[in-house]
Amino acid sequence: MKNPPLIFVTNDDGIDAPGLLSLIETVRDMGEVVVLAPENGQSGMSHALTVKDVLRVHKVREEQGLTMYKCNGTPVDCLKIARHKILDRQPDICLSGINHGSNSSINVIYSGTVAAALEGAMYGIPSVAFSIHDFSMNADFASKAPLIRKIVSETLKNKLPQDVCLNVNIPKLPGDEIRGIRICRQAPAHWKDDYVEREDPFHRKYYWLTGYFECLDTAEDTDEWALKNGYVSIVPVQVDFTDYPTIDMLKNWVL
Amino acid sequence: MKNPPLIFVTNDDGIDAPGLLSLIETVRDMGEVVVLAPENGQSGMSHALTVKDVLRVHKVREEQGLTMYKCNGTPVDCLKIARHKILDRQPDICLSGINHGSNSSINVIYSGTVAAALEGAMYGIPSVAFSIHDFSMNADFASKAPLIRKIVSETLKNKLPQDVCLNVNIPKLPGDEIRGIRICRQAPAHWKDDYVEREDPFHRKYYWLTGYFECLDTAEDTDEWALKNGYVSIVPVQVDFTDYPTIDMLKNWVL
Repeated sequence: MKNPPLIFVTNDDGIDAPGLLSLIETVRDMGEVVVLAPENGQSGMSHALTVKDVLRVHKVREEQGLTMYKCNGTPVDCLKIARHKILDRQPDICLSGINHGSNSSINVIYSGTVAAALEGAMYGIPSVAFSIHDFSMNADFASKAPLIRKIVSETLKNKLPQDVCLNVNIPKLPGDEIRGIRICRQAPAHWKDDYVEREDPFHRKYYWLTGYFECLDTAEDTDEWALKNGYVSIVPVQVDFTDYPTIDMLKNWVL
Repeated sequence: MKNPPLIFVTNDDGIDAPGLLSLIETVRDMGEVVVLAPENGQSGMSHALTVKDVLRVHKVREEQGLTMYKCNGTPVDCLKIARHKILDRQPDICLSGINHGSNSSINVIYSGTVAAALEGAMYGIPSVAFSIHDFSMNADFASKAPLIRKIVSETLKNKLPQDVCLNVNIPKLPGDEIRGIRICRQAPAHWKDDYVEREDPFHRKYYWLTGYFECLDTAEDTDEWALKNGYVSIVPVQVDFTDYPTIDMLKNWVL
């Protein structure tokens, strides 16, 4: 009998996040699950990796078909060190999430959740990042299980190209009110940042990042449109950042 | 008389890095220079931003035409907070670097130097990241000044499209042995990682990331080829990570 699929799971909200635990329970009967997640929350860590400090890994749970580890690194560190020091073979799939908060549109650039999946793709592992458009610790993850299982199952069956992962975003709706799954492009958008300025008790200034998200593209093929209209969005994400149209423009510069 | 250009400078190696100081001296007579750089090294921080902690900014130097600040955040934080709390108008150009070590090929994904420039581009500022293929603190930056000035001058003159920055990598050669400047695409490549495993004095295991870089693409239009053959590479970098060819493939999945 063929071995069950080896399912690697990580996230950026940390080893205790309800979204991670829900993802584990959702896929647990689909294979052997190994988890290595950050010991602390790593939101907004993007594709950061630890180069000037050491990593430590601790086993935190071991049961039939499920082993969980935590580590002091970033989501990308978790993927890398798991592959080299924890997993004895290439996983059949890498899952990252479920992130508390969406990672649609330009948020992909700041997301540790998507970065871990993208690093998985760079290792040649079919990889999927899951995020839900709900920051609450009590977000309704459970009703999304059938949708997530469908995406995991199709990814296991079809694989993905080298260096391409899936960025899945789920709207804040009960599972049976979600209208379906749409394949999308990343919506162009910007954050309109601001900083709240305060004084600490020693009269020294400090700043908190704040702001709002602005997407002016209203086309129906973006992840933003899908989420706003009750669909799960799937954007395939890749690692070549070259802006090809600008190459021609630059050839006219005097360099 | 028109105001001199407002030149914003940051980096990821931190406020004391020779590469930053060299970049400042290189462009100082081209405009008014404002620097806001991380107080500590931030190598490998990618597009990370500080969301769960506060930022503090301190002025460290003020002279005719040059003001320098440091902050406790990432390179991307530096760009954002400078724009909102330090600069009273949109800079004419944002420069990031000079990074100690190249950021060619897939390294763009881990680079805080490029991330700061890309964040600048998202703010609509013509932005350029500079890196030199030499990790040494004593790297020869000075002989590269004419090349850097040419790129800065052309960027000031021609501007750049919204959401597109330039990723400039300079080979480890004396300035007068550099064969020229080439406009390139990002070379596809991978890191072949490994972790060195050690024991601390308390017999607890820890790991250091190590590994080597592998680029199998030998075409002459990549940044890797340019660097290896004695040219400065310029890759225009953008923020849409969508893998468009995979969108069609995914439409055949049963979702």
